[in-house]
Amino acid sequence: MTAQLSVIAVVEALRQIRERRPRVHCLTNFVAANFTANVLLAIGAVPSMTVSPDEIGAFVASADALLVNLGTFDAERRQAVQIAVNIACGTGRPWVLDPVFIDRSAERARFAMALCAKSPRIIRLNGGEYTALFAEQAQAQLIQARALVCGVTIAVSGQQDCVSDGRAPVMCGNGHPLLQKVTAIGCAQAALMAAFASVTGDGVAAAVAGHVVMGVAGEIAGEQSQGPGSFAMHLLDALDAMDGARLSEKAKLS
Amino acid sequence: MTAQLSVIAVVEALRQIRERRPRVHCLTNFVAANFTANVLLAIGAVPSMTVSPDEIGAFVASADALLVNLGTFDAERRQAVQIAVNIACGTGRPWVLDPVFIDRSAERARFAMALCAKSPRIIRLNGGEYTALFAEQAQAQLIQARALVCGVTIAVSGQQDCVSDGRAPVMCGNGHPLLQKVTAIGCAQAALMAAFASVTGDGVAAAVAGHVVMGVAGEIAGEQSQGPGSFAMHLLDALDAMDGARLSEKAKLS
Amino acid sequence: MTAQLSVIAVVEALRQIRERRPRVHCLTNFVAANFTANVLLAIGAVPSMTVSPDEIGAFVASADALLVNLGTFDAERRQAVQIAVNIACGTGRPWVLDPVFIDRSAERARFAMALCAKSPRIIRLNGGEYTALFAEQAQAQLIQARALVCGVTIAVSGQQDCVSDGRAPVMCGNGHPLLQKVTAIGCAQAALMAAFASVTGDGVAAAVAGHVVMGVAGEIAGEQSQGPGSFAMHLLDALDAMDGARLSEKAKLS
Repeated sequence: MTAQLSVIAVVEALRQIRERRPRVHCLTNFVAANFTANVLLAIGAVPSMTVSPDEIGAFVASADALLVNLGTFDAERRQAVQIAVNIACGTGRPWVLDPVFIDRSAERARFAMALCAKSPRIIRLNGGEYTALFAEQAQAQLIQARALVCGVTIAVSGQQDCVSDGRAPVMCGNGHPLLQKVTAIGCAQAALMAAFASVTGDGVAAAVAGHVVMGVAGEIAGEQSQGPGSFAMHLLDALDAMDGARLSEKAKLS
Repeated sequence: MTAQLSVIAVVEALRQIRERRPRVHCLTNFVAANFTANVLLAIGAVPSMTVSPDEIGAFVASADALLVNLGTFDAERRQAVQIAVNIACGTGRPWVLDPVFIDRSAERARFAMALCAKSPRIIRLNGGEYTALFAEQAQAQLIQARALVCGVTIAVSGQQDCVSDGRAPVMCGNGHPLLQKVTAIGCAQAALMAAFASVTGDGVAAAVAGHVVMGVAGEIAGEQSQGPGSFAMHLLDALDAMDGARLSEKAKLS
Repeated sequence: MTAQLSVIAVVEALRQIRERRPRVHCLTNFVAANFTANVLLAIGAVPSMTVSPDEIGAFVASADALLVNLGTFDAERRQAVQIAVNIACGTGRPWVLDPVFIDRSAERARFAMALCAKSPRIIRLNGGEYTALFAEQAQAQLIQARALVCGVTIAVSGQQDCVSDGRAPVMCGNGHPLLQKVTAIGCAQAALMAAFASVTGDGVAAAVAGHVVMGVAGEIAGEQSQGPGSFAMHLLDALDAMDGARLSEKAKLS
């Protein structure tokens, strides 16, 4: 996929989210939950967030996509994850794995590895988490090879985000330093990828869309902000106002 | 209750909240908790939010009102709900039921139905949730009949909010489109209704106050906002600055 | 410690946080979690927040400090607290106890008392919580005597904050009325104290830093705010922009 085609795919995917208003069920941590819900609403999607094993099945079966974030995971949440992923797989719904902080806990890393075998559409993580999961450096060629072996799209965030499903990686260069100073930005970005995965069958297009949309919104918000508090506010406004013109003008893909 | 009387009742209830600073114990979901607490503080009430079955009894027994929100409910939370509602009933404290997303989960709908029998002062819900709970359309005449049969105040949010305790419904027309783009607005509105129920014995006045105060604050915030991020901020500022003059000028009741 | 020395110690501690970026593991409540994380990021520290007993050990063992907040505590959280505190004690990491709302629940007060015996670096609480814990009024001389007996730094927030480790109390007079209108300010302040405790061995300096930095940021934010919504935003911006010049100019210590 060339960079130009990627931008067109992102713009089209955004148009479809605004039209279809997909519901993304988020199994996420309590730190990120509120901000993630507001990011999904701002982009035009609908969040749901229950974690109860008794009802997670019904919520996932009627959702358009699933996000599994491993932050602050506990016994009940892990049980809910198993049920949710099995239903997503069984019903052909795309799901995104965000293995937060697996570089800090061997228990969490083992849990993430088992989930990788259950065909997530996208695995989103940073360089440290990539190394904890795959025992290798997060370099473009290795990421490409790993994605091919695993049969998934892998999206590694960094100075340049790297996305591959086994084909030549797409690199995304959008972003702003203040994105590092607000909690749950990465978690919310993974939720965006799940929303995009519900409107496009192409995992790379969905992951690139998550990176580009959040990165461009961050650039727009950064121009108007005095610090991380005002940045978080302007970021939601910028996501709400995002459109094809802004994306086409600002996307840095290669 | 005529529309004019309703506005006077809302203004008086707001004055009393500012004077008495009632504490509202909120059994709510982790997505809405922070925003709900900030909405209560902005209006002049005091939030508490523990969910532990070991201590929920002591917290509810010393609170002025109780909110029971069924979003993200789990085993421990359901146990806490039972204890909390029994104490609220036993001590004559008003409580508000917000049966979030019962149209998505049969398990949750059954739980909500059992709670309806425990004399909530107000049941707050949207049209879809009303239909899931009562198996009928959310039309003003049906809502009035249902409230009469159940012996509660029912408040159904929508383009026009409809509130009845069996008497002629009060319709509220305040609001702003951005209220749909921020998560937990409905949950926070139910918490406002619980705060108002602690200072007035009239369930209709309390429910109407929740609708009007949030709706008018939304209109004021909407005039100053560039999107959902700045809207959420201005909404809290507008709730803090709310007074009789603004309510009398802007309330749309019939 | 004279007031002048205290300001110098606060400025130096802030400089070290910006340089070392300590990670603070927060066992906190779900209402405060997001805001607490953003406050830590704004000041230059790194938050982590898992509560799972299976992994809390690994997270605390690699953290620079620990915060134990008793708000919304439940069975799993209490188990996690025990594990976390034992590891912090065993590895010499400073930890801060924030016994939220122990004046509302005897169960929670008993739990807090047992934790006091496990050598927290700082106990942060308000006057009502102090009285619930120590069965005496929160007066400067009593606080000093109590800190000496317990061998900890006690920081009592109020109109004038009072900090002592058994030596003559340091009084902090910074603050703004809107700090009372945003939820989780006290919880976030305790997290700041944990961050400061990770870069200075002096419990008084760390606690005073938490009071002064939040108080001065509140004063700066208050000048620009229209209410509690904009105040919370400006507060994060002010924490991010905090520096030695602002602290030296505005700190009110005696």
